[in-house]
Amino acid sequence: MKIIDLRSDTVTKPTKAMRQAMMDAEVGDDVYGEDPTVNRLEEKSAELMGKEAALFVPTGSMGNQLALMVHCERGQEVICDADAHVFHYEMAAAGILSGVQLYPVTDLHNENGLGVLIDHIRPPLSYLPQTRLICLENTLNRGGGSVMPLEQMAVVYRLAREYKLKVHLDGARIFNAATALQCDVTDLSGYADSVMFCLSKGLGAPVGSILAGKNEFIEQARRYRKLLGGGMRQAGVLAAAGLVALDDIAQLSDDHENAVRLAEGLAKIEGLSVDLSKVQTNMVMAEIQELSVQEFLDRILEAGVAAGPMGPGRVRFVTHRDVTAADIDEALMRIGQAL
Amino acid sequence: MKIIDLRSDTVTKPTKAMRQAMMDAEVGDDVYGEDPTVNRLEEKSAELMGKEAALFVPTGSMGNQLALMVHCERGQEVICDADAHVFHYEMAAAGILSGVQLYPVTDLHNENGLGVLIDHIRPPLSYLPQTRLICLENTLNRGGGSVMPLEQMAVVYRLAREYKLKVHLDGARIFNAATALQCDVTDLSGYADSVMFCLSKGLGAPVGSILAGKNEFIEQARRYRKLLGGGMRQAGVLAAAGLVALDDIAQLSDDHENAVRLAEGLAKIEGLSVDLSKVQTNMVMAEIQELSVQEFLDRILEAGVAAGPMGPGRVRFVTHRDVTAADIDEALMRIGQAL
Amino acid sequence: MKIIDLRSDTVTKPTKAMRQAMMDAEVGDDVYGEDPTVNRLEEKSAELMGKEAALFVPTGSMGNQLALMVHCERGQEVICDADAHVFHYEMAAAGILSGVQLYPVTDLHNENGLGVLIDHIRPPLSYLPQTRLICLENTLNRGGGSVMPLEQMAVVYRLAREYKLKVHLDGARIFNAATALQCDVTDLSGYADSVMFCLSKGLGAPVGSILAGKNEFIEQARRYRKLLGGGMRQAGVLAAAGLVALDDIAQLSDDHENAVRLAEGLAKIEGLSVDLSKVQTNMVMAEIQELSVQEFLDRILEAGVAAGPMGPGRVRFVTHRDVTAADIDEALMRIGQAL
Amino acid sequence: MKIIDLRSDTVTKPTKAMRQAMMDAEVGDDVYGEDPTVNRLEEKSAELMGKEAALFVPTGSMGNQLALMVHCERGQEVICDADAHVFHYEMAAAGILSGVQLYPVTDLHNENGLGVLIDHIRPPLSYLPQTRLICLENTLNRGGGSVMPLEQMAVVYRLAREYKLKVHLDGARIFNAATALQCDVTDLSGYADSVMFCLSKGLGAPVGSILAGKNEFIEQARRYRKLLGGGMRQAGVLAAAGLVALDDIAQLSDDHENAVRLAEGLAKIEGLSVDLSKVQTNMVMAEIQELSVQEFLDRILEAGVAAGPMGPGRVRFVTHRDVTAADIDEALMRIGQAL
Repeated sequence: MKIIDLRSDTVTKPTKAMRQAMMDAEVGDDVYGEDPTVNRLEEKSAELMGKEAALFVPTGSMGNQLALMVHCERGQEVICDADAHVFHYEMAAAGILSGVQLYPVTDLHNENGLGVLIDHIRPPLSYLPQTRLICLENTLNRGGGSVMPLEQMAVVYRLAREYKLKVHLDGARIFNAATALQCDVTDLSGYADSVMFCLSKGLGAPVGSILAGKNEFIEQARRYRKLLGGGMRQAGVLAAAGLVALDDIAQLSDDHENAVRLAEGLAKIEGLSVDLSKVQTNMVMAEIQELSVQEFLDRILEAGVAAGPMGPGRVRFVTHRDVTAADIDEALMRIGQAL
Repeated sequence: MKIIDLRSDTVTKPTKAMRQAMMDAEVGDDVYGEDPTVNRLEEKSAELMGKEAALFVPTGSMGNQLALMVHCERGQEVICDADAHVFHYEMAAAGILSGVQLYPVTDLHNENGLGVLIDHIRPPLSYLPQTRLICLENTLNRGGGSVMPLEQMAVVYRLAREYKLKVHLDGARIFNAATALQCDVTDLSGYADSVMFCLSKGLGAPVGSILAGKNEFIEQARRYRKLLGGGMRQAGVLAAAGLVALDDIAQLSDDHENAVRLAEGLAKIEGLSVDLSKVQTNMVMAEIQELSVQEFLDRILEAGVAAGPMGPGRVRFVTHRDVTAADIDEALMRIGQAL
Repeated sequence: MKIIDLRSDTVTKPTKAMRQAMMDAEVGDDVYGEDPTVNRLEEKSAELMGKEAALFVPTGSMGNQLALMVHCERGQEVICDADAHVFHYEMAAAGILSGVQLYPVTDLHNENGLGVLIDHIRPPLSYLPQTRLICLENTLNRGGGSVMPLEQMAVVYRLAREYKLKVHLDGARIFNAATALQCDVTDLSGYADSVMFCLSKGLGAPVGSILAGKNEFIEQARRYRKLLGGGMRQAGVLAAAGLVALDDIAQLSDDHENAVRLAEGLAKIEGLSVDLSKVQTNMVMAEIQELSVQEFLDRILEAGVAAGPMGPGRVRFVTHRDVTAADIDEALMRIGQAL
Repeated sequence: MKIIDLRSDTVTKPTKAMRQAMMDAEVGDDVYGEDPTVNRLEEKSAELMGKEAALFVPTGSMGNQLALMVHCERGQEVICDADAHVFHYEMAAAGILSGVQLYPVTDLHNENGLGVLIDHIRPPLSYLPQTRLICLENTLNRGGGSVMPLEQMAVVYRLAREYKLKVHLDGARIFNAATALQCDVTDLSGYADSVMFCLSKGLGAPVGSILAGKNEFIEQARRYRKLLGGGMRQAGVLAAAGLVALDDIAQLSDDHENAVRLAEGLAKIEGLSVDLSKVQTNMVMAEIQELSVQEFLDRILEAGVAAGPMGPGRVRFVTHRDVTAADIDEALMRIGQAL
């Protein structure tokens, strides 16, 4: 029995077209700026985001951390959502790499955000750390793939301008957000000074993310990328797959439909509850009533479905391009039988 | 008109006895470990805290940061209260100096703490930062000088042992806590692997704090103290005043009585509200109803009373050894007239 | 006219066999440890180096920096050659990432090394930074690809053991060293607690390096790799090319022969001088007598040969798998005409 | 028998006048900028150095490290003498605190300096760390208190300007340098963007140093001082002693005469050799011919003279205000008998 793997959209495997592109890619030494495929991907990505320049990086974490390094000086503070990836899943890197403190704010990404946000910006006193950056994440992974509405982003951006703060958008799943909001991706990136998005995850490329921003910003990010050990050589083999991934964004709406299908199914299974209003993109958060999270995960895995833990009493299912509607139905059946 | 300064207990000035002790102090080069007065203060402090060893440091901030540096490796996580000094008033130092991430937890210091605490300890997954230290603060400055009860400290300490975490106690005002709890100070320090307390603040010494812990811990803290530029030479002149300060802890109960007197008076003034149940030591938090915080502070300063801002809509008054009961009455009169 | 590119062996392009392997690679999510091709490469590499475990990293710089992070605590010191890659070409990363100080030592890699080395190990005084690690590099890039003899490595290793120091070997070109010394690569790695080697450079893989060491060391390196943003997902596409590269080490001796051929030719050209005794692997350092380095490089580039600057008055030529003996002859002719 | 302590001028004890000044000092809370004695010392120091502003810090190490933090961004490089205090005696702090790499240069402080200096400034390539600061030290402690001539400082300063680098002067003993050069101290500080000098050491204050520079520079240094835990409260008690110390600089010439007296005496003792030409201020370096350094130090200590180790085969004697010419004669006698 083949496991239906709903742990994350990071498990997607490169398509045939991507592999063929890797086979054929024209490459060069990217540390010297001579890899034509990387250069092409960076140009296309900058354009796609409506930014001056872009940088290919091996992971989304590196992209986010580079943004923090370039935007901030040591001893400054970065406001992020209490559920932000940069706070929970980047190994406390911001302290070491940028020398900054993350200030996690509950509900930053919803309509309550404005009220709480303004209270977290430090007054300009010499004995307080100074706020420098607001880091948004859209969609919000630990929020169950929830979408931050454009109006809310606009409000944050204007407030940032008023207080002379920068805004970085962790757009690991920015195309999911744009799909859900039925807007152009530049509508989202336009409310940020810099944006990171992933070619892996829902888009399916094997490796790689993009950081985009102003020319000077990217120039400095390129230096820091080398410092972190991210200055790869013939990276064009990866960039080639990334270019293919960017041609096939439309399929994300299938993932979103599958997530709703899955959520509705899970909600009917006893011992599980799902807030359907929060299923906005390709993720489903389910609350486990009786079993422990580990017991639940073990039991459904035995039945052929993989999901992931997401804090106390909660598991996460993620739909992605390697999972069809039929797979979802099969997964629901297996889970139902397992419980 | 002499200003009655209630901004902080850090404004206390050295007494005559302290100055005389500085005049007479036997000194040596403390980098070589040869200052007899520093050595005496460190021995006495270790004993007082029930720890193996102690280290004299120029500030409480340095003491706290050294504790983080010694307890933690880079990339680990430190749980602290959402109102902790280490999070708000130490210039985001923990990231730079220790390479750690602070994880602020709301209500860590009251009876709700246990429930929230356990959810903030990271599971041992290779892609998550690992929790290493719980940093408590008793009394809690931004909590309005509130006292964490011994039972609550015991619960935290046992949980830490269970999860193999260390506990550091920011006891900048540990003697205020012990006074309020009518317990021995070792009852508090016993629930921590390391403890920092201040000789300045309520005790009135001009400069200096103490970090105490195991021999090996203090040995490493001594090295890091040099790294931070805290390895002073003839520091015995300061330590001498610190020794005098330690002889006069009993007077803190006067400060507490004065705080209650002040709180009760403020509560009667229109436009102010005070939660009297939270006036547990030498601080009073007052909510300002009509004026802005800055307007309020300006107006009472003009009338001869200084207080400090403490977040939106809130000001802080602190009683200390340079303020008498009569000063409190005078301050209340001035404030009443000013509003 | 096709440029004969002798700037570095990092410009090598993946072979057809490598590309085919990338096309066919079985992959998975390596952050979950589930990429079978990465796993296979890591196992094979560990075995090849005679170490317990190995880790795939996107660059040699990241491999070296991870070694420093795992071996060292903040505030310690790392002895390296005054010409070390870790000192000159890793963007001063050791300070930020590991909080260590590099202590560059002239002539560490030749027979003078021992005498100077011992004088650079700090005595155990509490006011001095403590030496923790010796970082060797074999072959030594800025030394013109010079080889550190086994006896010299043995002496350093024994001294390190005596002083309880660790040894890391930057073996970016360890296979060139083993080829020149006609020894097994484990003869070299055996004198180090950890070793990094590159799959790119002379071996020709497009991207990737390996860090090898004890199980516990690699486990921690894996965590830090995530922190630096090096935790790639379906990295098997890269690992597949790396596995092919490891099957074809024997060809490095051709590069060495070509380097001698090039050196002898350059030595005959007026205005250039080459110390033939130092041409030990795949690099040739030439001293420029009349022109400035930039003028020289510009002029030969115009003639169709690319080389790189290597400090005042000096240029570096590197032979590699994309350059044949005939290319060398052609390059010599072009350079001769250009000058 | 009273030990004649020639280990360092850091062992000097506060004079009666200093102690009286501490007794009488008007103080306030310096974190709020309200300590009048600290303010007076900072103003006087700025004027003395010919700089816009100054900051009182607990140690010279903190002063130097603050200068690095303010001048540099992470990942940059700082050129210093191979014998610099900042490299040898500050616990590798520059990496952690500033994220910079120190590039130690042999002979930076003598007439050979220019030739070597220019070769250590990195070319502006994106894959190299960028040089940002030159850190000079005058007098040079590990150079045996040697003086860097004004012409040499001028040359370095002009070169720095040309390459857009900053210059920091570790002037821990700048008054010794000015005394030896018979110049004004501003002649020295004028060739630096920032300067640190110590009130302890030869000037005899118990604790404290000064960092001076432009207004904006000092403002940022003040913030970082708080971050490092150097923001003391009623620091006026220390500043008062510092003000007294500044009134008594002229006595340093006695120390210099005593150093010559000591050097001439030591040179006559068998088993010792002293380069008299290098005895320029208050230090004497002696080479030990027969004994080990530790044996030598132990033996003279037993005879009542304390000196310090200064690397292989070498010891350092330092004259200071607590040692008279008669003490020197006595010390020479004791040493002679001991050997």
